[in-house]
Parts: sequence; structure tokens; C-alpha cells
Amino acid sequence: MSAFERETSVRPIADGIWAVHLSADWNIGDSANGGYALSPVLRALRDVGEHPDPISVTTHFLRPVRGGGEATVTTRLIRTGRTVSVATGTLHHAGHDRLVVNAVFGDVDSPDEAIIAVPAPQLPPPEECAAREGGAQGVELPIAGRVEVRIPPNRVVGGSDEAVMEGWIRLADGTPPSTMTLPLFADAFPPSLFPKLGRVGWVPTIELTVHVRRRPAAGWIQARLECDDLSGGRMIETGTLWDSTGRVVARSRQLGLLLNS
Amino acid sequence: MSAFERETSVRPIADGIWAVHLSADWNIGDSANGGYALSPVLRALRDVGEHPDPISVTTHFLRPVRGGGEATVTTRLIRTGRTVSVATGTLHHAGHDRLVVNAVFGDVDSPDEAIIAVPAPQLPPPEECAAREGGAQGVELPIAGRVEVRIPPNRVVGGSDEAVMEGWIRLADGTPPSTMTLPLFADAFPPSLFPKLGRVGWVPTIELTVHVRRRPAAGWIQARLECDDLSGGRMIETGTLWDSTGRVVARSRQLGLLLNS
Repeated sequence: MSAFERETSVRPIADGIWAVHLSADWNIGDSANGGYALSPVLRALRDVGEHPDPISVTTHFLRPVRGGGEATVTTRLIRTGRTVSVATGTLHHAGHDRLVVNAVFGDVDSPDEAIIAVPAPQLPPPEECAAREGGAQGVELPIAGRVEVRIPPNRVVGGSDEAVMEGWIRLADGTPPSTMTLPLFADAFPPSLFPKLGRVGWVPTIELTVHVRRRPAAGWIQARLECDDLSGGRMIETGTLWDSTGRVVARSRQLGLLLNS
Repeated sequence: MSAFERETSVRPIADGIWAVHLSADWNIGDSANGGYALSPVLRALRDVGEHPDPISVTTHFLRPVRGGGEATVTTRLIRTGRTVSVATGTLHHAGHDRLVVNAVFGDVDSPDEAIIAVPAPQLPPPEECAAREGGAQGVELPIAGRVEVRIPPNRVVGGSDEAVMEGWIRLADGTPPSTMTLPLFADAFPPSLFPKLGRVGWVPTIELTVHVRRRPAAGWIQARLECDDLSGGRMIETGTLWDSTGRVVARSRQLGLLLNS
């Protein structure tokens, strides 16, 4: 069993209530990575409906998840139909609701080529890119032991005049990507503001929506995330993930705060 | 009182329960426009928290709203803090839940210019653009009496080799735009697939998220919506709205189905 499977697994303890043991090994600094923290909720929600793949995953981050340990997930099936199910779930930890996930599940199996798609930009291969370093962000990165991120030289902190983050990502234990790990991957890169503006502060997410488009092939996932909207201390970041065959496998958009550190 | 105010108004009838009379005057064909149908829920949610502006509005469309008439909204405050509130609400009509709105409220008043923003493309002025016509979409458009939409010649059905919809929008009774009408405006244009592919079918929305960025100035709102992802019968459409001063006032993204008609 992969570390991701094991450390996001949920156990039913009552009708619509699930237990999960949160690991601190997915932390960025003192807090769980958002993509990790939403994953046990997503797993519980998948079990609530009858469709295998999350096709739309909206997470509202209410409070940080600190320290790990025992937590509960409460779920409610909103609607189930022939092609999609809709369900909502909340992660409760250390006395408070921490995040809410509203997800649509369906089946992304499709033999068709995409009719319209964003092409994957050319990037240096992973071996010519640098590992994500906590030092450049001023935090410890326990998550680096769980998720490998490779960033090309022109996207390091302060390295670009574009607010664009790019690179490669995969699970560190060699587990191939799946439709369940793509939301994690969409939220595991440094903020796209950092290449342009430097380490300007902390960029907590208010709301993140990930649309899974296709079941990913084995290998590295390529990512491109851009902030094209920064105003009044809030920013919008838009992302695309491609698999090792160059196909789009997920899209993302988030609303985040820019808090000066 | 504007038609929008009157026809989206909610009346508390119990703790967390609101009554609304849905009007059929915002229909596209037989169904209420999604942006209209979500608006009474958004108004109830604003009353639940303590912040004036919706800054993130995610709607899951479960079933069409047909026929109008009496409906109820149930609301729940998820979290309220100093800068933002998060709340969820459901529209119940004719025996079924029809849509769920998860919204974050804050205050978009900001004297700052945007630090990063998408510039408004040049468009012919509204008087050189055509009114949205139901005939081109094969449906009646009662909503045309409530919302004026103007589309430039190169964005009519089948008129472009890009999956881009552009144009101008405002309330028909002259009421200026507000942060509460921007989600409506983000969902009131014909599908961005139509200029490229023609009237290929019905494009129901599964999930729509609108981020309101700024309080809009009076006058026409300019919009640009693009589908850059169509695969397996599902499409992603991304939009930007600008006010009459050229400032970005909202961003949108939706996951929709493409159903051949």
C-alpha cells in the first residue's frame, strides 16, 4: 500500500462519519498541505457515491490543520444520478471544522482524444530541474519525503518576471498517479507569485477547485500554475496538469490570500 | 426596486429557512438561467454572515429549475471570521433540491489598483454589437427582457474559429451592476463553444465558481469566456468580467457537459 493510500485512509465509524489518522509527514512548515488534508475527505466521499473518479473537487479551507493525529470526516450524499454523484464532506480535527469538500464524481474513462486542449509547454526534463527547497520559502518541508517536486531554473523564487510556477511532480514512493492524487498534485507547488515577486509572504488558499479530466498515465506529472490576478491582497491562480503522454489530466483554480510575512 | 432585487428576494420563515418566489422571466427555454437561480440563495447566504460581498461563489447544479413559483432556501453558516464568512445554501423547488451554493463573503472595497490583471480586449461598442437571439440557439429567451447581452459579429454562432464568447451585459431595467449581480452576468452568455462549433447541443453546467474581485462601476460590463478544454463530453469554460472603467471585477470557471441535441 502506498504512503498516500495508507495516510489518507478512512474508516467508517457511524452512518456518514469516518475516522482518519492524519500524518504530519505531509506538512509544509507546521501545517498539513491542503491537497493532503482534503484527500481523506475525498476518499470518504467516493465511498458515499457510486462513481469512481472525482471530476470536480471544490475545497473551502476554514482553518489550518496542525500537528496531525486523529480526525473525523462527516459526509452527506447530495445527489446521485446515472452519470454523476455530488457529495459534501467536512474534516474535523482538534476541536474545529478545518475544511469542507464539495465534490462531483463520475467516470473519466474516455477513449477519445481531447477536442480542445491546452498543449503542454516544453520544460527541461526532471533530472535537469531542482528539488523544491524549504529554505527558499523559509519553512521546513516534511512533505518533500512524500511528494517529489522538480522546478526548472527559470521558475525558482525570484527567478522570473512572470507569476508562473512550472515543474514536475510524483509520489516519492513510486506509486503511479491516479485521479485521486491529482487534487493533491494541483496544490503541492510553491505559489506562482514567488518566481515573479520573491518570497513575499504566506499565500493561504481560501477556495480551490480541481477538475480531473482524464485518468493519468504512469510517470511524472507536468504542471503549470499562473497567477494572472492579484488585487486587494487576494490572488487567483490557474493551473493545468499533464501526464507523461502529454495529455491534460487536471485543471485547477484557487482564490488565495497574500499575507505579508 | 430593481427586477433583480425583487425577483431574487428571500423572506425568512424559520431558523435557516427562507421563502422565495422564482420568476419565469429569467428563463432560457423552459429552465431558469443558472445565474438567476443561484441568486436568491446567494442573497440568503449574505444575510447569514457579516460581510457584504461574495468573493467566491461555487454552485453545483443538481437539476434544472423549471416553471418558477414558490421555492425554499435552506442555509447554514459554516464559519465566520474577521475577514471572511463561509456559508452553504440549497434551493428546493417542486419536490427536489435544485442547486447548492457554497459561498465565501468578504469586503471587496479596495482603493488599490490591481498588481496583476488580465487587460480587457478591444471590442466594438455595444451599439455595434447584436442582441443575443434565441433563434440562433433554438430556444425562447424570456431572460432577454431582464438582462441585455450584446455580442460582436465575430462571436455569433459559428462565427469564429476560436471557442471564445465575448460581449457586453447589463440589467435591462438600468440598475447598475453590483457584486451580487456579477455571478448572474458570468453565467448569462451563450456557450463559448458555439462561435467555433456552431449550435452543437445543450451545455448544462455541473459546477460554476465565480470570484468577485472588485465593486463594479456603473455602466456595461464587458465579458470574455473561453473553452480551452473539451474532452469526453465535458468542457471547461473560463471567464473574465471588466467594468466600464476597464478593471477586472470577476473571474469565472465552470465544468459543463456537452449534450448533443
